Amino acid sequence: MTRLASHSIFARFAKMKSYAFSALGRRTVLPPISWLMQTALTRPKLISLAAGFTDNATLPVGFSRKLLNEILSSPKTGQPALQYGITAGEMNLRSLTARHLQKLDGAPSRTHPPERLMITGGSQQLLYMTLEALCDEGDIVLVEDPTYFVFLSILQSQGIRARGVRLERDGLDLAHLEKVLERLKKSGELHRVKAIYLVTYFQNPTGVTTSFIKKAGALEILKKFERAAGHPIYLIEDAAYRELRFAGDDTSSALMARGATERIIYTGTYSKPFATGARVGFGILPKPVFTIVNRIKGNHDFGTANLLQQLLARALETGLYDKHVAKIEMRYRLKARVMKEAMAKHFPSSVEIWESGGGLYFWARLPKGVSTGMKSKLFQAALKNDVLYVPGALCYADDPSRRKPDNEMRISFGSASESNIREGIKRLGNVLRKFV
Amino acid sequence: MTRLASHSIFARFAKMKSYAFSALGRRTVLPPISWLMQTALTRPKLISLAAGFTDNATLPVGFSRKLLNEILSSPKTGQPALQYGITAGEMNLRSLTARHLQKLDGAPSRTHPPERLMITGGSQQLLYMTLEALCDEGDIVLVEDPTYFVFLSILQSQGIRARGVRLERDGLDLAHLEKVLERLKKSGELHRVKAIYLVTYFQNPTGVTTSFIKKAGALEILKKFERAAGHPIYLIEDAAYRELRFAGDDTSSALMARGATERIIYTGTYSKPFATGARVGFGILPKPVFTIVNRIKGNHDFGTANLLQQLLARALETGLYDKHVAKIEMRYRLKARVMKEAMAKHFPSSVEIWESGGGLYFWARLPKGVSTGMKSKLFQAALKNDVLYVPGALCYADDPSRRKPDNEMRISFGSASESNIREGIKRLGNVLRKFV
Repeated sequence: MTRLASHSIFARFAKMKSYAFSALGRRTVLPPISWLMQTALTRPKLISLAAGFTDNATLPVGFSRKLLNEILSSPKTGQPALQYGITAGEMNLRSLTARHLQKLDGAPSRTHPPERLMITGGSQQLLYMTLEALCDEGDIVLVEDPTYFVFLSILQSQGIRARGVRLERDGLDLAHLEKVLERLKKSGELHRVKAIYLVTYFQNPTGVTTSFIKKAGALEILKKFERAAGHPIYLIEDAAYRELRFAGDDTSSALMARGATERIIYTGTYSKPFATGARVGFGILPKPVFTIVNRIKGNHDFGTANLLQQLLARALETGLYDKHVAKIEMRYRLKARVMKEAMAKHFPSSVEIWESGGGLYFWARLPKGVSTGMKSKLFQAALKNDVLYVPGALCYADDPSRRKPDNEMRISFGSASESNIREGIKRLGNVLRKFV
Repeated sequence: MTRLASHSIFARFAKMKSYAFSALGRRTVLPPISWLMQTALTRPKLISLAAGFTDNATLPVGFSRKLLNEILSSPKTGQPALQYGITAGEMNLRSLTARHLQKLDGAPSRTHPPERLMITGGSQQLLYMTLEALCDEGDIVLVEDPTYFVFLSILQSQGIRARGVRLERDGLDLAHLEKVLERLKKSGELHRVKAIYLVTYFQNPTGVTTSFIKKAGALEILKKFERAAGHPIYLIEDAAYRELRFAGDDTSSALMARGATERIIYTGTYSKPFATGARVGFGILPKPVFTIVNRIKGNHDFGTANLLQQLLARALETGLYDKHVAKIEMRYRLKARVMKEAMAKHFPSSVEIWESGGGLYFWARLPKGVSTGMKSKLFQAALKNDVLYVPGALCYADDPSRRKPDNEMRISFGSASESNIREGIKRLGNVLRKFV
């Protein structure tokens, strides 16, 4: 899909007058997901089970009002919130965030040092800058098959090659990871491998949570190949959905693994659990990576808006953040159950559903041969019946060593209301019955 | 300076284990200004006339509280503010901003279409993305001599070469611009020239405002060279300080020049006139550039935090923004006058002062041969006397075709109190007397 889109963009530019764009500019395509979003916005009757938006009703409107009121009630606290801060983020929020992560991980503090913690404009910005810091055009980043599609967009834009590693129900297929690295070693490309990217909690799009053993195992495997690579291979752990958990226990982050200090780039966010409109992300990085990424951030924006940082700091300090997370936990548990029950009722039994204990998504796998792609009859029929999902193929990297599966779909219960979830799944079920 | 810093970084990395950083990562150096900022923070007795911070006392604490209270007073307005928006920014803020610029320019609306207007994380982010969209490593961007040093940091980081064009008291030296372009044409490098970058209002660091005639003239000259270049050469107008005006009339933006629609990239910001801690920037871009930069923003962060956008939208709608701008106008007029009077009293008469009708800076030129650089005796003496300025050389691009002047300094009245301005200038004057 990305390849197709990219191709057509090039063709269009060739026809246009040359516009003097950079290679990056020309490679940066409109992600297909944008089309899905646009479609959802322009067709009011459509029920979108595609968007990764969070639930509007759970947004902390009252909390935020109270906290901002407090912050802005005096010049003493109000002025610093409305003034520039430092590039890496406000020390108070960095400390609070480190402590918060430490608590989640049940960890000693030295594994979560605020000095290596950076505040960013969502974790998305941190992912972008990390790739800028590590990768040149033609370098390779390993990703899960499937993975977060906006991450694939960044790779495409920066000219970085992606190689897919199979995903199992408890995370990465470690044997396959080893095989992929062996293959790259044989082809003389191992020195181009800079990192592996894992969405470890309630993964977007599959809902899979990676076990701690697999994270630690992946890190061990990467280390084995470092000598041949000639440099560190980092493990980027994207924990964006970690706090959208509504069943089961939390899993320790990769920061708790042996050797994490030097190799784990952990990214997290307050956007999803708190408010996507007050976007504050963060990450803990190995020292040399922190140094470079922090300088890059100096060029991007020299620091995330202080007002948002102060809002989050106060939410953490007062305990309102934890209260809010407990509230949305109940809400998403309910919505996931509503969707699950609707799927049980309306979906053909040959559709395999991957259920999750958190996040915003179900992953559905149709029998082989049934395409869910944007040009498929199934997708068109769904659209005609006013229901939208994310075709699974959009979540697979362009990896020439395997074909992209195209019989899967991501179905989100994040933003739709309960009644829209029921109605949307009913519509989708009707369509599926015709094709499966 | 930048070159030196960059060199020492490379040396350090060579000594370290190879860290697998990208070319961009290795090129991205800590800007010397960071050291100045750090120094200011760690020495409480020091009076910093170096920082480009705005005046704390003028920050709109009360306004912001009122507006955020209104926004968050009901789920109807509060929820959208705390939810994701679209990548290019909220349509309401885009329209209001377009109308605002149109009013400033006394323009017909078609020159300021909201469809080509984008909201960004400060105008800094827009500058970064614009360079990403236009320039490959080795490309050339023309800049004013001197210019905004963080822009030079971005160029250095992205591997873009800068060529300086002389600055006069009313803006760019157009004859010199033509000469520089001729020289690049002769050396066969014209096809690498992608843009010229001008800080057109109360320039950082000199305070110079570029006349409309010079903007239009520069655009004409660029057009003349486009055929030989083989592609458009864009004029990036950075209007960050436009609304920090306290004397004289506003100047029309380059958007009003003939052919602007296709060639002017106008960047502005609400950070400086409203609140640097609620950072919202914006820009109007030619359509093809808008398309690419908007996609790049999709990868950076898929949209600036909605809460900040709604805050600014409401400030504009209610007229509180205009009220605030009128308020800070008086404040900076006063602070500039205090600084001017102190300089008249304490500075040797051989120091040439460039006065400005807005912005945050005075520019001082010392007699030739007197170095102001970070390693100079003068800078060290100033530091010893607890006063800090920005050495002028930091604001000059690495351009092998000329030596960097190093007998200048940027002196800011932005963040210091009136008494600190008086005392700081007195201290600086005492130091200058010893060296001039």
